[in-house]
Amino acid sequence: MLRNIKITIEYDGTDFSGWQVQPNKRTVQGVLQNALAEFLGKKTKIIGAGRTDTGVHAIAQVANFSMKKNYDEHTIMNALNANLPNDIFVINAKEVDSKFHSRFDATSRVYLYRITKKYSVFERNYAWHCSKFHDIILMKKGIKFLLGKKDLTSFAIAKSKKENMYIDVKRCEWKKKKDELIFQIEADRFLHKSVRTIVGTFVLIGERKLKPQDIGTIIAAKDRKMAGKTAPPYGLYLKEVKY
Amino acid sequence: MLRNIKITIEYDGTDFSGWQVQPNKRTVQGVLQNALAEFLGKKTKIIGAGRTDTGVHAIAQVANFSMKKNYDEHTIMNALNANLPNDIFVINAKEVDSKFHSRFDATSRVYLYRITKKYSVFERNYAWHCSKFHDIILMKKGIKFLLGKKDLTSFAIAKSKKENMYIDVKRCEWKKKKDELIFQIEADRFLHKSVRTIVGTFVLIGERKLKPQDIGTIIAAKDRKMAGKTAPPYGLYLKEVKY
Repeated sequence: MLRNIKITIEYDGTDFSGWQVQPNKRTVQGVLQNALAEFLGKKTKIIGAGRTDTGVHAIAQVANFSMKKNYDEHTIMNALNANLPNDIFVINAKEVDSKFHSRFDATSRVYLYRITKKYSVFERNYAWHCSKFHDIILMKKGIKFLLGKKDLTSFAIAKSKKENMYIDVKRCEWKKKKDELIFQIEADRFLHKSVRTIVGTFVLIGERKLKPQDIGTIIAAKDRKMAGKTAPPYGLYLKEVKY
Repeated sequence: MLRNIKITIEYDGTDFSGWQVQPNKRTVQGVLQNALAEFLGKKTKIIGAGRTDTGVHAIAQVANFSMKKNYDEHTIMNALNANLPNDIFVINAKEVDSKFHSRFDATSRVYLYRITKKYSVFERNYAWHCSKFHDIILMKKGIKFLLGKKDLTSFAIAKSKKENMYIDVKRCEWKKKKDELIFQIEADRFLHKSVRTIVGTFVLIGERKLKPQDIGTIIAAKDRKMAGKTAPPYGLYLKEVKY
């Protein structure tokens, strides 16, 4: 009988060409599958809850895979970590129902984005450095125009004309913490680069180049050219996947 | 007339073979001197307040150099930063008295060391991961045996038999902050690897393998073999140089 193992993974996206396996590229899925093959002695596919882009980090990505061997959860976690480089870390391994699918069963994903006002060499790969003044009160006022189930064509790169562009934004916040602006967003799903484009657009509100209500206008236009620039990948973190 | 410029520098030591110029190695001094040569159009020596080892970081290293050109301080800082890679950053540039020498005039140096209890990929190059339990109350009790002017042969690697091994430890503290232990030490000078060996020894007190008063016994022995292991470089930061 095949066992279904759910793992929770932290990774620093700096030196990865994103999640998905690609020939001749160092990817998170590829490195994880290699570590798993070392452990199990056979090639095994790992299914991830979401694909993160090059440079994007994960505080708690979720994935699952099948295995036969009878190791306990703690041993599985330790064996994977022993075979992984130090920029990926398995936080947890748990045997789950055979029907569990890390991508299809996720009910929502939470992303976090960090903007720093002060340049620091230690944050160069972990936050977007924006020294401009941002009016966070205006940025907070833009949130209500984003909440709920909406076609977010304006904030995404469509993979095809038939793609479903609806996202149900359940929660969204901007917080100030010392020299940082921290954005958090929870939705049932995300589209390609959508979080980073939402961040890039809110930053324009903070700079008073857009008004809070322009978020509504931009969404209604269903036109990517109406939104702001896509914020850089290194400020973005997949924070949580909910089931 | 030559102007004397004092600069304050932040750097991430991860990808540097320490401060001092070495042939065919990427060093902080070397990269800074290259940026300065780009700016001034001629090779110019930069004097640093202290030599940091491979992997050791700086929050505020101090250095100085001479130049003729009449640029203002802000322009000097920006020109250097424009020619520097993103893991070194000049925080400040200031014209100082022609007699100022960043190394000889420093009255004390402050170092900081970070130990994390919880492994995180984001901290792998910035803190020492030690999951063991540490009794910080015992560690704090060891401090008084280190304070004052003492021959710290036991905590250092001597460069020569004639080297002056006296250090005047002015301030020293252990603090707990969430999952971290933070060590800070201020002294007139330091010896090679002395901060890291002091940290490695205090950690043994925290693990109850040594007693707080053993710090006194170790110092009195003037024998490196009596002290603990040298803690890894990536947890160490040159925090401040005082004049």
